[in-house]
Amino acid sequence: MQTNGPTQIAKGMIGVDLSGPILRASLVTSDGAILRSVEAPLERDALSAQIARLVADLGGNQQARSLGIGLPGLVDPQSGRVHFSTDLAATMREDFHSELEATTGLPVLLENDANAAAYGEYVAGAGRGSRCIFYVLLGYGIGGALIFDGHIWRGASGFAGEFGHITIDPNGIQCACGNVGCLETVASAPNIVRRTHERLFRDGTSSLSKLATNRDFTVSDITREARNGDDFALLMLERTGRYIGTAIAAIINLLNVERIILGGIVMEAGELLLDPIIREARRRSFQPCFETTEITAAQLGLDAVTVGAALLAARKHETTNP
Amino acid sequence: MQTNGPTQIAKGMIGVDLSGPILRASLVTSDGAILRSVEAPLERDALSAQIARLVADLGGNQQARSLGIGLPGLVDPQSGRVHFSTDLAATMREDFHSELEATTGLPVLLENDANAAAYGEYVAGAGRGSRCIFYVLLGYGIGGALIFDGHIWRGASGFAGEFGHITIDPNGIQCACGNVGCLETVASAPNIVRRTHERLFRDGTSSLSKLATNRDFTVSDITREARNGDDFALLMLERTGRYIGTAIAAIINLLNVERIILGGIVMEAGELLLDPIIREARRRSFQPCFETTEITAAQLGLDAVTVGAALLAARKHETTNP
Repeated sequence: MQTNGPTQIAKGMIGVDLSGPILRASLVTSDGAILRSVEAPLERDALSAQIARLVADLGGNQQARSLGIGLPGLVDPQSGRVHFSTDLAATMREDFHSELEATTGLPVLLENDANAAAYGEYVAGAGRGSRCIFYVLLGYGIGGALIFDGHIWRGASGFAGEFGHITIDPNGIQCACGNVGCLETVASAPNIVRRTHERLFRDGTSSLSKLATNRDFTVSDITREARNGDDFALLMLERTGRYIGTAIAAIINLLNVERIILGGIVMEAGELLLDPIIREARRRSFQPCFETTEITAAQLGLDAVTVGAALLAARKHETTNP
Repeated sequence: MQTNGPTQIAKGMIGVDLSGPILRASLVTSDGAILRSVEAPLERDALSAQIARLVADLGGNQQARSLGIGLPGLVDPQSGRVHFSTDLAATMREDFHSELEATTGLPVLLENDANAAAYGEYVAGAGRGSRCIFYVLLGYGIGGALIFDGHIWRGASGFAGEFGHITIDPNGIQCACGNVGCLETVASAPNIVRRTHERLFRDGTSSLSKLATNRDFTVSDITREARNGDDFALLMLERTGRYIGTAIAAIINLLNVERIILGGIVMEAGELLLDPIIREARRRSFQPCFETTEITAAQLGLDAVTVGAALLAARKHETTNP
C-alpha cells in the first residue's frame, strides 16, 4: 500500500548580515541563489527581536531549515558565544544564540562576517570551481579568510586571516593593534579618506577639494571622482592598490592559493584598484607562485555575508542532523 | 596447522640529504629515531651511483623498505621530476628517480629539502604534538613549509611556503627574485655576512674586524663572537632577528598556526636570534594570534632533512602499497 503524505517542499535557509548599519536578511537556496531579501536599520538594543521579525517576514521555519548570522567580531563556532571586538558584539547577551533559536524555531549558526562572506564567494561567487581561496574584505576595517576544501582555516585561536594587520611599512604609522605600519592603517575605507585629506592641500585642483570644504567625503566619493577622471583621486587609489598588493604578495608567497578574492566597499573602485594591486603583487611575489594564483574581484557584493552565513548554517545543521 | 615462516623483521627506512656540500644518509625507525648515519662529500657528477653506495652501506633493501631524498629544488611529488632552482638540480638527469629505484631496489621519493626538514621536525622534533606548524629554514637561502594534519601545503603550483621572499622593507635592496626588500636579502647566511662586512668599518673594535683582514668570516663566526660578548656581533644578530620577526608576524596574522619552528644554520645562534625574533613578532602581530602561536627553535639540527625524507618516503610507500 502506498501512502501519499504531504509533499515535502525543499526548504531554503536564511542568512542575516549584521556587519553594517543596515541589517539585511535573505532567504537563500542550497546553491546560494537569493530568493527574497528584507532589510532595515539595525536596532542595536533589540537585536534578537528584530532578527526574529525579519526571519518571520521571510517565512520563518515554514520556508527555511536553518539560520546563519554573520557579525563583526569573533565567534566560537562550537559554543556560539561572541567574543571580542566591535561595540555591536558588546550589546549581545550571553544567550544571544539560544534566544534566537527559541524565538525563530530554527537551528542558528553565528559566524564572523568576513568568514561568512568568504564562504559565500567560495560556494556561489568568485571562488566557484577553486579548491582553495583567500578572501580579503576591504571595508571599514580589513579582514581576511582562508578556505581550503570547503573548510574555513581558523588557526590555533580562531583568529587566523588577520590580513589587515600585516606590516607593509616597518616605519609606518601607529595601528590600533599596537603595531606600526599595518595595512589597515593606510588601506581601510576611513584611512583612505584620512590619507586623501592629508594630501589634498597639495593638489587644490582636485574636485575632492570642493567636496572637502562642504562636507566630509567618503571612499565612494573618491572612487566616483576617479572614474570622472580626477587625477588626484586616481593617484590615491593607485597608491592604495600598491599597499594592498604588497600584502597580497605575502599570501601568494606563503600559500600560493588558487584564487585571491577581493571584496568590501573599498572594492567599489573595481579595476582602478585591482590593476595596481595586481601590478604590485606581481612585482613583490615569487614568480612561479604569482603565475598560478588568480587575483580577482568578489562577485556577490552586499550579498556575500547573507549567502555565506546561510550556507554555513545549513551545512552545520545537516552535518549534525544527517 | 601452524606454519612458522621466517621471522618478519621490522625494516627501517633510509633518508638522504642533498642540501649541502656533504651528502648525509641515515637509516631511520618509523618514529624518526636515527639508527645509523653515513656521510661523504657530495659527488655532483655521479650522484645516483654515490647514493646507491651509501644506501648499500646502510644495509640497502635488507634493512630498509623505502628511500627518501631531500634536495634543494622543486620536485613534483607525483612524477618525481626535479624542476627549477639550484645548480644541483640541473645535474640531475630526467631519469634520476627511476635510476635510483633500479640501483637501490627501493621505492624512492624525492622531496624539496625544506619540506623534508619540516616534516622531520613535525613528526620527530620540535613539532611533536601539534596539528599545524610552519617551519622556517634559515640557511644559505630562506625557505619555509606549512604542515597541517600531516600534510605539506603545496599550493596551486607546488611553491607555497616561499617565506624568504616576503617583503619586509618596501624600499629595500634588490633580490634575485626581482622584488626589493625580501627577507632573504638581509637574513640568509650570506646576506648576514654581507651586512656585517658593510657595517664593520663603523666599529673597528669588533673582534670580527681582525677576522675580516685575514679571511672571509661566516655566520658561524658572527655567532661565536656574539657568544663571546662582542657587542657588534650581538647587534648584527639582534637586527637580523628583528627582520625575521617582522616576516614571522605575517605567518602569525594570516595562519595563526600552533607552532612556528626555526631551523637551519643561521639558528646556530640560538636564543641570541630567537629572542629578538620573538620580540619583533610580538610587536608586529595581532595579539590574540600571537598568544596562541609558539615560536621555537628546531630540534633535529642537521638530521631534519634525512629524518623527514625517510618518513615521507615510507608514508608514501605504505599509502600506495598498504
